[in-house]
Amino acid sequence: MNETFSSPERTEKISNALRRRQPRLAVVLENIHDPHNVSAILRSCDAVGALKVHLLYTIEEFPDVAHTPSVGAHKWLEFERHTSVSSCFAALHNDGFQILATRIDPAAKPLYEHDLTRPTAFVLGNEHRGISGEVAALADGLLFIPMMGMAESLNVSVATAVCLFEAFRQRRERGMYDTPQLSPEALRSKEIEWQLK
Amino acid sequence: MNETFSSPERTEKISNALRRRQPRLAVVLENIHDPHNVSAILRSCDAVGALKVHLLYTIEEFPDVAHTPSVGAHKWLEFERHTSVSSCFAALHNDGFQILATRIDPAAKPLYEHDLTRPTAFVLGNEHRGISGEVAALADGLLFIPMMGMAESLNVSVATAVCLFEAFRQRRERGMYDTPQLSPEALRSKEIEWQLK
Repeated sequence: MNETFSSPERTEKISNALRRRQPRLAVVLENIHDPHNVSAILRSCDAVGALKVHLLYTIEEFPDVAHTPSVGAHKWLEFERHTSVSSCFAALHNDGFQILATRIDPAAKPLYEHDLTRPTAFVLGNEHRGISGEVAALADGLLFIPMMGMAESLNVSVATAVCLFEAFRQRRERGMYDTPQLSPEALRSKEIEWQLK
Repeated sequence: MNETFSSPERTEKISNALRRRQPRLAVVLENIHDPHNVSAILRSCDAVGALKVHLLYTIEEFPDVAHTPSVGAHKWLEFERHTSVSSCFAALHNDGFQILATRIDPAAKPLYEHDLTRPTAFVLGNEHRGISGEVAALADGLLFIPMMGMAESLNVSVATAVCLFEAFRQRRERGMYDTPQLSPEALRSKEIEWQLK
């Protein structure tokens, strides 16, 4: 089957990407509205090897991830839709994730002081409203990206990338991209699934 | 004069931002086209305390930085326009900058292996074409952002932010935000200038 659908180069690329995938690194998009932001975020998720993107849409409509200009990144990610904070967080807690919500808040700790080698889900909020009060109350921790300038905020796709690439940096130092984080069974089944994409 | 134009809170905010500004950290935008990307990049520059943005536009038109949706970040940055790579790079080399151009290339070194506490200018290229051959040939070094996934590239404003925040992280560890990097004279004159903005 592989011979039919996949060149040796593609087979190897898929195998390498799967051996680096981080099933314990996830992102929750809470009502992020702009398709360009969603697209840029999906590209960053794929780049650092995140596996799953949780779409928590309680106000805005769910984004059409297959039609954002994400240069195909969405094909290599898994999506889970949620319409309530509690069901989204229950699913993540059930899988042992720490939930870190991004917010400029006196109770928040700087990004760089969080241990991001632990199973981690970052919650990013809507472009204008930020994360909801419910997310802030129910998250395991709040984080902020230190800002040295005059403006008050970053573009949300930029903020997501800064979080994800700090997780990448910490995990890379810990060797977490050198040994597969997926189980042998998951690797095998996803390899077949990805060859067919 | 300060009493007329600025509350004590604003005066202090300006003073703090200037004491953290990094005159030896700069960005060169080579023909970046999309105003949303330019806007997100300006917000990131302000956030990490970069002082100057070089606009190297040899094909696309110069962006109208005052009218991008940059939530005012452009007000706190300095812009220098260039219409040739050689004049842009001559100005940077004259000021002692290492010029690092971002490109996926066998000769490129990973971002995390560059010493970004040195005077550094990052060159980011056009959304579709990337950096020009001339920039690649004349830069002091090439860097790439390691990517673990299937997609081939990041959004350009995301790539810029990942570079800038790695410079921020390295410089912060080195204490470069704890003591002013601007001279006492520059601090004084910019404080007056910024109060009037």
